[in-house]
Amino acid sequence: MSNIDSYLNRLRTLDFAGMYDNDFFLTWEKTTDELLATFTLADALRELRTRNISARVFASGLAVSLFRDNSTRTRFSFASACNLLGLAVQDLDEGTSQIAHGETVRETANMVSFMADVVGIRDDMYIGRGDAYQREVAAALREGFDEGTLEQRPTLVNLQSDLDHPTQTMADLNHLIHHFGGVEQLRGKKIAMTWAYSPSYGKPLSVPQGVIGLMTRFGMEVVLAHPEGYEVMPEVEELAARQARESGGSFTRAASMAEAFEGADVVYPKSWAPFAAMKQRTSLYDQGDAGGVAELEKELLAQNALHRDWEANETLMETTKAGQGLYLHCLPADISGVSCAAGEVAASVFERFRPSLYQEASHKPYLIAAMILLAKLEDPLGSLAGRTVATHPRFAA
Amino acid sequence: MSNIDSYLNRLRTLDFAGMYDNDFFLTWEKTTDELLATFTLADALRELRTRNISARVFASGLAVSLFRDNSTRTRFSFASACNLLGLAVQDLDEGTSQIAHGETVRETANMVSFMADVVGIRDDMYIGRGDAYQREVAAALREGFDEGTLEQRPTLVNLQSDLDHPTQTMADLNHLIHHFGGVEQLRGKKIAMTWAYSPSYGKPLSVPQGVIGLMTRFGMEVVLAHPEGYEVMPEVEELAARQARESGGSFTRAASMAEAFEGADVVYPKSWAPFAAMKQRTSLYDQGDAGGVAELEKELLAQNALHRDWEANETLMETTKAGQGLYLHCLPADISGVSCAAGEVAASVFERFRPSLYQEASHKPYLIAAMILLAKLEDPLGSLAGRTVATHPRFAA
Amino acid sequence: MSNIDSYLNRLRTLDFAGMYDNDFFLTWEKTTDELLATFTLADALRELRTRNISARVFASGLAVSLFRDNSTRTRFSFASACNLLGLAVQDLDEGTSQIAHGETVRETANMVSFMADVVGIRDDMYIGRGDAYQREVAAALREGFDEGTLEQRPTLVNLQSDLDHPTQTMADLNHLIHHFGGVEQLRGKKIAMTWAYSPSYGKPLSVPQGVIGLMTRFGMEVVLAHPEGYEVMPEVEELAARQARESGGSFTRAASMAEAFEGADVVYPKSWAPFAAMKQRTSLYDQGDAGGVAELEKELLAQNALHRDWEANETLMETTKAGQGLYLHCLPADISGVSCAAGEVAASVFERFRPSLYQEASHKPYLIAAMILLAKLEDPLGSLAGRTVATHPRFAA
Repeated sequence: MSNIDSYLNRLRTLDFAGMYDNDFFLTWEKTTDELLATFTLADALRELRTRNISARVFASGLAVSLFRDNSTRTRFSFASACNLLGLAVQDLDEGTSQIAHGETVRETANMVSFMADVVGIRDDMYIGRGDAYQREVAAALREGFDEGTLEQRPTLVNLQSDLDHPTQTMADLNHLIHHFGGVEQLRGKKIAMTWAYSPSYGKPLSVPQGVIGLMTRFGMEVVLAHPEGYEVMPEVEELAARQARESGGSFTRAASMAEAFEGADVVYPKSWAPFAAMKQRTSLYDQGDAGGVAELEKELLAQNALHRDWEANETLMETTKAGQGLYLHCLPADISGVSCAAGEVAASVFERFRPSLYQEASHKPYLIAAMILLAKLEDPLGSLAGRTVATHPRFAA
Repeated sequence: MSNIDSYLNRLRTLDFAGMYDNDFFLTWEKTTDELLATFTLADALRELRTRNISARVFASGLAVSLFRDNSTRTRFSFASACNLLGLAVQDLDEGTSQIAHGETVRETANMVSFMADVVGIRDDMYIGRGDAYQREVAAALREGFDEGTLEQRPTLVNLQSDLDHPTQTMADLNHLIHHFGGVEQLRGKKIAMTWAYSPSYGKPLSVPQGVIGLMTRFGMEVVLAHPEGYEVMPEVEELAARQARESGGSFTRAASMAEAFEGADVVYPKSWAPFAAMKQRTSLYDQGDAGGVAELEKELLAQNALHRDWEANETLMETTKAGQGLYLHCLPADISGVSCAAGEVAASVFERFRPSLYQEASHKPYLIAAMILLAKLEDPLGSLAGRTVATHPRFAA
Repeated sequence: MSNIDSYLNRLRTLDFAGMYDNDFFLTWEKTTDELLATFTLADALRELRTRNISARVFASGLAVSLFRDNSTRTRFSFASACNLLGLAVQDLDEGTSQIAHGETVRETANMVSFMADVVGIRDDMYIGRGDAYQREVAAALREGFDEGTLEQRPTLVNLQSDLDHPTQTMADLNHLIHHFGGVEQLRGKKIAMTWAYSPSYGKPLSVPQGVIGLMTRFGMEVVLAHPEGYEVMPEVEELAARQARESGGSFTRAASMAEAFEGADVVYPKSWAPFAAMKQRTSLYDQGDAGGVAELEKELLAQNALHRDWEANETLMETTKAGQGLYLHCLPADISGVSCAAGEVAASVFERFRPSLYQEASHKPYLIAAMILLAKLEDPLGSLAGRTVATHPRFAA
């Protein structure tokens, strides 16, 4: 039995019917079976590509990408995923500014989607906005389909919102599954999601929130650490705690990076902005108070500079489980002495884990492709099973 | 007999041989049979997609898009049409400024078209320029093919010029055909193409010109209304009058929106710039007279502000045929109280017709695809007939 | 026997195994057989397209383009080549500035290449940088493949570096092969690669270097002419001299355009920047010495203005072999009285050769496609032989 068959057989044991004709906003809205189906299908797609078997299921079709923030990595991951399935990417450039909501969103969503099978959106800059915007677009697309404007309802994939970053955190988790040899091996493993110092202060909260919102689903001992004032959204912490109880794991907080790293199987040190300050910034933007924004940024940088010691260095890495803890990052990292004077991680730590970090990232396009397939195909198994290099070569080698 | 077969059978009754290896600049250069073939093929393509049957006829090939003006809707419609047929879009960005003509146009046209099957151009900003530019490109491409530079002659599709906007007005007309239940049902129907107030004053004339240049072909009672000074190009009015006589309809003018709306089956209220002023602006630009342009714009805004009462509101809509006149717009509309304080249409009117307006727009990509097919395929019937979801699935559902 | 079969039969006689899984940086790193295989396969691909036979070998796959300089022609040639083979182009926009090297290059190269089959790079602005950068990217991609990040190793195609411009010069050479009726006909033909005046002074050296580095491979009498101070890189001159000896041709220098044109079968008059000054400019940029750069540019323009008489005019063209010398240019040319007051070539000369120049350019996309195929396919003959319009139509005509 080939690896592909074994992946597809595993898929048969899972209930993922709820993903069909649905969207992907937040991992915590998905059942465990649905998440596992996504990982399994992603692995199957990767195996197909490795064996030069085409996973193209679309003869034509558009994928609309809407990045409301600069992006190279996510853009290429989305483009790769869509290309793998046969979809052509068309970028919708709205600039980086906030655009009007309401009528405009509904109209634009329909006007760009006449032949769209998927719409991928990254909108993570303003607390309380990104997820709301994505749902507004998705609702408009469902309405457009129901009213007969669209021949199909495009599925929406969250490529990062103010709440969650599912394509990233699922890449992180799939990396852990492969690293530890199966999702069941994650049970009892300690993962430290900790804040880390970076000279820039305003990075999105979606990664730490997404990590505690996802890793608590699989029985892991999830520890969150950050300096005072760098809280993430309280509702995500609550859901992490509830999920941890339900999955037989734990969700706790630590006061320092050192405490969090102690005995950890996995560490994820990363800079993020303080939630309360981000909310305040959104409100200042709304009031058009440019002076207030500048003042706030000055305060934040000063506050930030107090925590330069939150760096993942060799000394701390030695305190992880048997000194062998796995270092994760969503990239790009702020590497001390390389990309900045002092940053999130020591250069030697980063360099040691570099191949592992690249592999962590490499899961993303396959996960996006799996999300799309599970939303578009009623029977993904029927569509992919039985493909061979003879019947479906990706290219004539 | 499936709907697709019935469309294809209708196509068999029409003479569209003249479209093969030809371009699409202006609707009034096409025979009625050619226009009907375009509508029919567009409907067939839509039906194919609805049934998940691929209309992909190209294994590879480029579609070059050249937008000399910002555009989201037309860009996505063109991208959708090309994708449906299997062509990849490559944008040629010349900026929004006027580029040099002559040698440069001829050379650039050839250099981007080595593998191009279609070139779509939007150039509508300057009176006397857009259509001329498109013909210059088309001539260069024919020459490049004749000289052996190009293996194929790309077909040119007018995505909006200073004269006409065929992909828009044919979407409008196809919407009417569907609304009234057939092209023969249009005979005797009254359509009011009227100017409407918008806080911006310089919108292209291609929509009103295109509407009177197209709707007069099918026996409709076409009425054109606008404030004094907002004349469209006289040669288009003349051709509208001639076409109306030939098709057994009429082309008349009304002095007010109220007069035009009275008893109308269809209303199309839309802002446009005064033709004479646009000609003057082009000439000022040519002289590099920035001060003159600013002065002219000031005058135009003042003139414009005198006509705020040209708004399609509920009171006027009630005067249409049985109070049930159909409201058309090419979108985006300036909606009073929504996108501006006072605009082309009252919010309640727009909202009531919103689904209908989206459907009107949804014809555009299929019409563009039909234009391309009729220009590229000697026998479109032979290529599309007999396709089923089993033999040509758009995607493996 | 069809033309396609005759091309493929010729390919069978050549040894191009070394191109498989390799990159294309410089023509002088390739064996003569490898260059001839590239020309032959390019011609076969063109013949396939002319006969409406698809050369698509990829069902899916990305082509990453990285232009560190504005480009329309090369961009469209690369897009055309990739499209012909079934690859979708995704642009990586790094701006026109110099980006950081080292960690960033390695990481970015991997992050954009998860599904990339080819990476095309144009980086020609700074002496000592472009080729080095391309090799850094290629090394990172090989490492990413070896480490398991990438499922395939993308092949790198040099779309212009500081050293060479192989896709251009091979288009030039293939034009000569077609013009003279075979590569063996080039033996003993005199080609004059000469500097020409242009009002802009900083054009890359990659074309003259690439021309003398390639044309000396095939027994031609290659003459290089330029005003004092406009030397190209000495190592390229040395290799041109060595290659000329080995191929039974010659490489000499002439002091004037007139001397170079005398009796020439082919002339290639083109502006370029002085090598030493470009090296100095790179160094000033590195020091952030904007004043020094401005001062240098002033000097260069003054120096440049002394050589307005280096123009390919009718008088000089008459001195070529029987007055029938072939005029080459990589386009766009600075045409006297057309694109500038005084430039590289007289208008009447350019116009007479215009169709020939367009055909010269038209080889480029096919050559790029051939480079990709030879790097990606272990057996390109097996993949392409036997394709007919019935089995592999490019489009349903």
